[in-house]
Amino acid sequence: MKLTFKQDAILNGINIVLKAVPSKTTMSILECIFIDASGSEIKLTANDMELGIETKVEGTILERGKIALEAKLLSEIVRKLSSSGDSMVTIESDEKFTTTISCDNSIFHIQGRDGEEFAYLPYIERDHYICLSQFSLKEVIRQTIFSIAPNDSNKMMTGELFQVTGNQLKVVSLDGHRISIRNIELKDTYRDIKVIVPGKTLNEISKILGGDNEKEVLIFFSTNHILFEFDHTIVVSRLIEGDYFRIDQMLSSDYETKVSVNKKELLDCLDRATILVRENDKKPLIINIEDQEMELRMNSSFGSMNAQVPTHKTGSDIMIGFNPKFLIDALRIIDDEEVTIYMLNPKSPCFIRDEEGKYIYLILPVNFNAASV
Amino acid sequence: MKLTFKQDAILNGINIVLKAVPSKTTMSILECIFIDASGSEIKLTANDMELGIETKVEGTILERGKIALEAKLLSEIVRKLSSSGDSMVTIESDEKFTTTISCDNSIFHIQGRDGEEFAYLPYIERDHYICLSQFSLKEVIRQTIFSIAPNDSNKMMTGELFQVTGNQLKVVSLDGHRISIRNIELKDTYRDIKVIVPGKTLNEISKILGGDNEKEVLIFFSTNHILFEFDHTIVVSRLIEGDYFRIDQMLSSDYETKVSVNKKELLDCLDRATILVRENDKKPLIINIEDQEMELRMNSSFGSMNAQVPTHKTGSDIMIGFNPKFLIDALRIIDDEEVTIYMLNPKSPCFIRDEEGKYIYLILPVNFNAASV
Repeated sequence: MKLTFKQDAILNGINIVLKAVPSKTTMSILECIFIDASGSEIKLTANDMELGIETKVEGTILERGKIALEAKLLSEIVRKLSSSGDSMVTIESDEKFTTTISCDNSIFHIQGRDGEEFAYLPYIERDHYICLSQFSLKEVIRQTIFSIAPNDSNKMMTGELFQVTGNQLKVVSLDGHRISIRNIELKDTYRDIKVIVPGKTLNEISKILGGDNEKEVLIFFSTNHILFEFDHTIVVSRLIEGDYFRIDQMLSSDYETKVSVNKKELLDCLDRATILVRENDKKPLIINIEDQEMELRMNSSFGSMNAQVPTHKTGSDIMIGFNPKFLIDALRIIDDEEVTIYMLNPKSPCFIRDEEGKYIYLILPVNFNAASV
Repeated sequence: MKLTFKQDAILNGINIVLKAVPSKTTMSILECIFIDASGSEIKLTANDMELGIETKVEGTILERGKIALEAKLLSEIVRKLSSSGDSMVTIESDEKFTTTISCDNSIFHIQGRDGEEFAYLPYIERDHYICLSQFSLKEVIRQTIFSIAPNDSNKMMTGELFQVTGNQLKVVSLDGHRISIRNIELKDTYRDIKVIVPGKTLNEISKILGGDNEKEVLIFFSTNHILFEFDHTIVVSRLIEGDYFRIDQMLSSDYETKVSVNKKELLDCLDRATILVRENDKKPLIINIEDQEMELRMNSSFGSMNAQVPTHKTGSDIMIGFNPKFLIDALRIIDDEEVTIYMLNPKSPCFIRDEEGKYIYLILPVNFNAASV
């Protein structure tokens, strides 16, 4: 096999597929990037058996072939071969898989492995799909991914629900303390879909997505897999099996108190309050809403804080406690200047949502001892 | 005590003295910043008993007094109190040292400690001194600090020699494998000085120094201490006791091979070679100089690299081995586009130095098995 590329082109391809190279594995072949130039195109693939990425790279095939090369070594060599980006990189391997990577005045020799050892990506039927912009997909992930559960104690909570009904896509994540929901309208109407996509897949894909509003992503669904196709790249991931939580019954539109508040002011005050909280410290932030003023109070072994935020309130006064981190997480990813918070009573979840129902963030309150406030 | 400041002013002062707050200590009072407004000025002090920093902060004294406040808490509160920087911050403490920090709509209460508990900085006679620009001091530190020894096995190697002879300041660091020397000319002639300054002190001071060529630093010397005075800040540090290594006998101007090479090209090739070396891997980089070409070779379990760098050589051909990290460290901080390397034989140190003797970097070679090259 003998291939030449512009350094930028091959480096870009490597960086895309690197996202699917596992950091730890007992199967050393999975630590490789598979270069397939057996046909008329050059394709790079990485696959950790849960998540697989394949991307096409522009280059010249001087001699067809395939090879698997240790991903980190390949990535570092190609990155450091030249500082110009425009330089031509040559990758050549012999029948013993000894591989030469050269550029300008530098030449590397490393040992590759037989491409036949590499596990191909699973085959997915391409009939059941939806289409949306790269920007929308990237945004939807950013606005929900923070509230998946960080560990595996409940597998389903480590993923996100992708539900398509007609021309509506609903994306949901929850971790037992809060629920994040984003609804977006698709350009077309599609067959109904309801799948649970691993959070890791969504995290990695949002790093690769360009975020361009003009470019599209096709998402294909099969029984056990989801496939994202965009630019010259496909990402295939296993789905999480099972029925997702029934969240509709947790969503209520009843409220007694509705407050509108400047997002940045509230966020700054919440940030301030967390100074007095160390990790694993379960100190609640008390929000006291009286008349048109919201007062935030935090008491801990480090000291106390009081802060006032002007609000516009309709309904009853209320005093309610929250884990400030959960409010901060939701407010950080809302782009609106003004947010509206709906509350029923100090035991019921609060809702942060917009008028059009594009986003809904449900957060459970925490108990507090009223006497100590 | 009651003081008001612009947020930026107090925050800047805190950030300066924070450099002397120990991250670990058994004396909890050392984790505090001491605010002294008992006179007509507001001074902040931190002191880890080796290194002490005091800085004056612009503000208004509404009521005189002093207080010690937990450094990290104070720093975080003041930083997050407002996002404007221009807001006024008030710090007020009562006779029980309970302290109120307020700004705009937010108010914090924390428990302070009696300022009397705090250890004052040692008193230094100000008669024996030198003067140089902040820029020069910062540069001299940057260009030598990388070759101090990282741990305490030889205390003297963790510091740097500051030696003044007439109008010459020589700064030296060494770690047993290499020596870095910077010579700079001072504007005036001073009394001879020869002291060893702890590397930690120099690291911290170079973070505080503005790097302004117009602004000066006064450096005062006493038997056991060094004091740096600049802007509104003083930094006092203990010196390392003992006689520094006699480096003059290690410096020789004999050479058999002199090569001039483009610094960036050589550095890029060295960086490339380190891809094949993991930490604690003692693989030497072989430099083979023949005619007007320098060839770099690296062989490791990961593979091999060859690279050519054009050079201008006078003298004999040579093949010599180095730890590539030591060459990289020295080349990174040299600002010249072209560097000159002097070598005698494969067992003797190489010297990277300029014509004027402003810098000298001595690096010991490593043995290599010529048969394996």
